Amino acid sequence: MTTAQPNSSSATASYDVLCATFTRLYRLSHLGSIAGWDQAAMMPPKGNEARGAALAELQVLMHQTLTDTALPARLQAAAAEPLTAQERASLLEMQRDWQRANLLPDRLVEAQSLAGTRCEHAWRTQRPANDWKGFLENFRPVVTLAREEAQLLSQAQGVAPYDALMAKYEPGAQSADIARIFGAVKTWLPGLVQRVRAKQAGEAVLQADGPFPMEQQRALGLEVMGLLGFDFEGGRLDISTHPFCGGVAEDVRITTRYTADDFVRSLLGIIHETGHARYEQNLPRELLHLPVGRARSMGIHESQSLSFEMQLARSAPFVQFIAPLLNKHLGAQDAFAPDNLTRLLTRVQPGLIRVDADELTYPAHIILRFEIERALVDGAIEAADIPTLWDEKMQAYLGVDTRGNYRNGCLQDIHWPGGSFGYFPSYTLGAMYAAQYFARIRSLHPDLDARLAAGDLSHVMDWLNTHIWSQASLWETDALVQRATGEALNPEHFRAHLETRYLAG
Amino acid sequence: MTTAQPNSSSATASYDVLCATFTRLYRLSHLGSIAGWDQAAMMPPKGNEARGAALAELQVLMHQTLTDTALPARLQAAAAEPLTAQERASLLEMQRDWQRANLLPDRLVEAQSLAGTRCEHAWRTQRPANDWKGFLENFRPVVTLAREEAQLLSQAQGVAPYDALMAKYEPGAQSADIARIFGAVKTWLPGLVQRVRAKQAGEAVLQADGPFPMEQQRALGLEVMGLLGFDFEGGRLDISTHPFCGGVAEDVRITTRYTADDFVRSLLGIIHETGHARYEQNLPRELLHLPVGRARSMGIHESQSLSFEMQLARSAPFVQFIAPLLNKHLGAQDAFAPDNLTRLLTRVQPGLIRVDADELTYPAHIILRFEIERALVDGAIEAADIPTLWDEKMQAYLGVDTRGNYRNGCLQDIHWPGGSFGYFPSYTLGAMYAAQYFARIRSLHPDLDARLAAGDLSHVMDWLNTHIWSQASLWETDALVQRATGEALNPEHFRAHLETRYLAG
Repeated sequence: MTTAQPNSSSATASYDVLCATFTRLYRLSHLGSIAGWDQAAMMPPKGNEARGAALAELQVLMHQTLTDTALPARLQAAAAEPLTAQERASLLEMQRDWQRANLLPDRLVEAQSLAGTRCEHAWRTQRPANDWKGFLENFRPVVTLAREEAQLLSQAQGVAPYDALMAKYEPGAQSADIARIFGAVKTWLPGLVQRVRAKQAGEAVLQADGPFPMEQQRALGLEVMGLLGFDFEGGRLDISTHPFCGGVAEDVRITTRYTADDFVRSLLGIIHETGHARYEQNLPRELLHLPVGRARSMGIHESQSLSFEMQLARSAPFVQFIAPLLNKHLGAQDAFAPDNLTRLLTRVQPGLIRVDADELTYPAHIILRFEIERALVDGAIEAADIPTLWDEKMQAYLGVDTRGNYRNGCLQDIHWPGGSFGYFPSYTLGAMYAAQYFARIRSLHPDLDARLAAGDLSHVMDWLNTHIWSQASLWETDALVQRATGEALNPEHFRAHLETRYLAG
Repeated sequence: MTTAQPNSSSATASYDVLCATFTRLYRLSHLGSIAGWDQAAMMPPKGNEARGAALAELQVLMHQTLTDTALPARLQAAAAEPLTAQERASLLEMQRDWQRANLLPDRLVEAQSLAGTRCEHAWRTQRPANDWKGFLENFRPVVTLAREEAQLLSQAQGVAPYDALMAKYEPGAQSADIARIFGAVKTWLPGLVQRVRAKQAGEAVLQADGPFPMEQQRALGLEVMGLLGFDFEGGRLDISTHPFCGGVAEDVRITTRYTADDFVRSLLGIIHETGHARYEQNLPRELLHLPVGRARSMGIHESQSLSFEMQLARSAPFVQFIAPLLNKHLGAQDAFAPDNLTRLLTRVQPGLIRVDADELTYPAHIILRFEIERALVDGAIEAADIPTLWDEKMQAYLGVDTRGNYRNGCLQDIHWPGGSFGYFPSYTLGAMYAAQYFARIRSLHPDLDARLAAGDLSHVMDWLNTHIWSQASLWETDALVQRATGEALNPEHFRAHLETRYLAG
């Protein structure tokens, strides 16, 4: 196996050399991805230190490759070469990777890594101890360094500081747009939650009777993965503490965890990760070795998992289709009647914890975090202001009292302690994209629900494959969504979806 | 995680730089080892191509590091530095790694890889088709290239050509010694086999009644691994087509395969790999990142697996100890009575296949292969001569007729098709070392058998840890064995062991 030999007399000689370099990086990242999956799903504890050292060595090596001083001239030369549209999109993604590795001084990256590691490590005991004061001490330098990073990136890229951080996950996204979109959601979401709560208060829902042995849950999950088109010749299902979709596009590793008294968590978790997996498994094979062959963004990735988990799996027709599988694998019980099961999967209950939130209240958790972290990065607020803002917003958006409860309030997520700012919007952007896709699919196929109830998922899968999976990073996010659905991101589809699902019928 | 910064003013500055380089190689090899284990134990088929490309990229990278033109001067300078005895041993192993990577021209390595891959690939269908003629065509270039490699290495290292190939697995071993040792075995082995067969013909042995469900076999295997001291905090047991011990010393991955009607194969396989694993798990942690921290040789590695599988697991006292576990996990049956079980595990039956051979006839398979491959590398015979020699030797050593049966004759092993010559002796050297260790342990502890029967393995484990595991590659093989047992390799211990086990009692 040798790296493709670029023909130096070619009109695209520089681009060809870049392709060889990025192919090399892709191959090396393969090893990191598999070792990372193994670390989470397989590795015994004593392997951890050596694994950490090995992965760090790989990071150094890949960073060295991306900071090779020959690269800038090559990127510039390639830009002047007669590239096809696809090659031009490819070059843009290479430039993004190069920027990400080169715009920040090593000193800052190292300081951020140290501060984030220290803060996150202490957070693991400070959170259960509800110790906001102790946390704040480690968190202040994390914020200072993140602001420094945001400033540097902002100047180099000509975007707002928060947007520069968000660009790691959502290239091209602008926080002004997101603020406008989320602002609109805030005008109707609290009222909708109240109306839905009032409606559901009058509905009887039968809880499923456990325990549900792990092997039965796993067999159910595997069958559902198969029905959703997961390719087991190119992927696996395993167990990890925090479920994720990892591995490489050629060999996608999804994980879940099983709780004996709750089959819903593992089942919906598996369906969610299967959405991520099908995106990866259907990225165009011929582009995988280049940055342009990757998934478009975290928001688009999340739109796939949420298309599967929210749009499909919690819908009445899909539930009707898979209810018999529950009886088959878990033993028949009245709670598995499709109507009851649908009510179980769409139960709304405002709560403290984002990851446990239902579909309807979830966006409130995200909007709150977006508003706080954006103000924090911009310098409009300080770290010490977070708890008060948290309490106010949780009360305003969800009517939940969080005062004094840091543990299940502003200390609940790993993102901020580790120094990740700008990721949270992706979750709700994903939910909105998914609603928009399904509005489009439904308009193309009025028989969608009948098909889904009969187990025919082809309308959905064909559309996602054609418009999202096969498109990789060939288009900017806005263009991808415009081409796919005929319009820019329009949160009204999300609202309509929620109102239909939670108030109608 | 950063690589240790050598102090350039230190008296061992060159040695320190080498340590940093080899630490880096160790960390990168970690990723290759885990990805290799995954490929055999976890990976779905569609991951194979990308995995192959990733591993090849890693190989290229490690080869580049080892062929860095700055290395020879550094190795030379380090040799002149005031090193401790341990550092000197460490430097020697670095030199060996360097030689292995630098003595052969890239052209030859590439040609060998191509020829070996082609030959092995075709062999996978030629073996079942019994197609010696077809095989010979691909195999001739493999032999020619191996001879070329042997000549080059032989000239550079001042050893016989075959010894130069064997040095990859048994550094320092001399085929003249091995020929002498194996020659002695040939004088008594065929007669011993006959006597044992005559004795066993009169013994009734009850076969165990299956099927034995995989989960029961696995639970039995895990419990036995625990009793043998396998550290589950630093390793795992999984499944693969060809059982092996892989992973890294900090995280040892052993595999087995299960057949429903034969629990012995998986149980003894697991015990065998656990022997390899304990060696790795007990190599000195502080030296792991350097070549000197590795296991001494393939023969010494095999001496650990065979200490566990042959010396321990097939012995009457150990069987007495674990027989209750068979009843516990597989259900009680008369065949699990210790006496019967011991007879089952020591049944002798000359056969065609090396990997299925019993302890007593196994060396004959090895001696035959050693004699043929040595003559082949030296040019004393040609590839076309192999079948006739095979038939003659199988008849002479084991009384088995192999004429026309290439499939289960000279085509049965993967070693030669892939271009590996010089590995086979390690198997029987390992068996001999193991017998010598146990003779030593028994002389130190006359109560050994009583202890083993009571489940107290401390005499064995303490001795192996002190004399083998903790010594890594600090000594040449001969010195290691001399220090451990008080004498050089002495095959009389092996003979005495076989005669005692198979003729006495």
